[in-house]
Amino acid sequence: MDDLGKTRWVFVDGYIPAWSNGPGPEMVSHEAICVLNAGGQVAKVELTVFFADRDPVGPYRLDVPARRTLHQRLNELTDPAPIPPNLSYACVLTSDRPVVVQHTRLDSRQAENAIFSTIAYSG
Amino acid sequence: MDDLGKTRWVFVDGYIPAWSNGPGPEMVSHEAICVLNAGGQVAKVELTVFFADRDPVGPYRLDVPARRTLHQRLNELTDPAPIPPNLSYACVLTSDRPVVVQHTRLDSRQAENAIFSTIAYSG
Amino acid sequence: MDDLGKTRWVFVDGYIPAWSNGPGPEMVSHEAICVLNAGGQVAKVELTVFFADRDPVGPYRLDVPARRTLHQRLNELTDPAPIPPNLSYACVLTSDRPVVVQHTRLDSRQAENAIFSTIAYSG
Amino acid sequence: MDDLGKTRWVFVDGYIPAWSNGPGPEMVSHEAICVLNAGGQVAKVELTVFFADRDPVGPYRLDVPARRTLHQRLNELTDPAPIPPNLSYACVLTSDRPVVVQHTRLDSRQAENAIFSTIAYSG
Repeated sequence: MDDLGKTRWVFVDGYIPAWSNGPGPEMVSHEAICVLNAGGQVAKVELTVFFADRDPVGPYRLDVPARRTLHQRLNELTDPAPIPPNLSYACVLTSDRPVVVQHTRLDSRQAENAIFSTIAYSG
Repeated sequence: MDDLGKTRWVFVDGYIPAWSNGPGPEMVSHEAICVLNAGGQVAKVELTVFFADRDPVGPYRLDVPARRTLHQRLNELTDPAPIPPNLSYACVLTSDRPVVVQHTRLDSRQAENAIFSTIAYSG
Repeated sequence: MDDLGKTRWVFVDGYIPAWSNGPGPEMVSHEAICVLNAGGQVAKVELTVFFADRDPVGPYRLDVPARRTLHQRLNELTDPAPIPPNLSYACVLTSDRPVVVQHTRLDSRQAENAIFSTIAYSG
Repeated sequence: MDDLGKTRWVFVDGYIPAWSNGPGPEMVSHEAICVLNAGGQVAKVELTVFFADRDPVGPYRLDVPARRTLHQRLNELTDPAPIPPNLSYACVLTSDRPVVVQHTRLDSRQAENAIFSTIAYSG
């Protein structure tokens, strides 16, 4: 499955809710970028984060081992800088090998959580 | 990244819920069109809104600066006319440069909010 | 915009929840198929519905006027037969002209509603 | 419709919530993989499940009869092994005939359920 996926992916509706209800870590408001590397060699992934009112930040570097998936909470990235909550952003992922990418938000700002998820755009 | 994206995008399930629960602005029922311009020059974007029972309205003109993302609440568009709440619509976005587009609804008509989001259709 | 879209679309996770909470018609559990015909002539659309344990049912015929969108609740189709609630189904849409299709579910079986939506598959 | 769909599909954000609220079976937290085989012959489907920290598991074998849809709860797979709850995974589906695939999660860990669904990635 070394050919499964693409090397450039985008999601646009990035937004980390600023507060939460319910038990952690599951019910903490968060966004996750989910990457599948079905191939036989490690995929070196870089994220660049775009904002409305400031220059892009990145690259955030992630390794996805061969035949593994990585579900990375975007809240937990720190290098080169945390992504601020309550601020709109977008994200471009590039990889040196084909991967598949999905983006998910869990919003628990109200007492009952809400979720969305979408396969990212590859192009 | 001047080539990232497409110049024509569509979402079809447009609908601005007519009432809300919870603190604003975050919890006000709304829809957003999220645009990423990863390229080096401003993208001039136009929206046309289609309805079930009347002629299309537009263009709504938006500029997305170079290397920026714009998350525009559709509720807040006023020129050439506001989009009525509680009315089904669809939206075609055209851009003079490649962009990526995602559409999201937050519905807080009941006490706990619900959300969906999807990468728009490019074609 | 006569060329906008495709002539065959699919959604697979069809399911009409069997009960509801909250005021109607907005909060009645339902699924909608949303069609945009951005072109200059009426689009003649046919739906075929597939099930797990019985033969497909259809065609359901819908007209989408030129430059209009149609948001059709699947609960409300009656000809050739209603789609049963609480039963998994899938749906293939064919059109004589290009259209764009999105599928949405609002589930209000619990006190607070949940929603999802996705651009359908075209192929 | 023998040509409708693709033979390889992926979803990446797999996660079976570990607890539930509300009446079963409808309101039990679950994920479903929904497959449409619109063609005239049975489709032999295989799932491979990928994890973050262990080798992939599979194949899970499913038959989708001609002109039928299968909505399979991933919680209910047992052969070759159940998918553990509260653990991130991804899934690759291969089929000997074209099919269309959609992935859905219903999360009822809080009192009111949340849902997402997305057409899977084909490539």
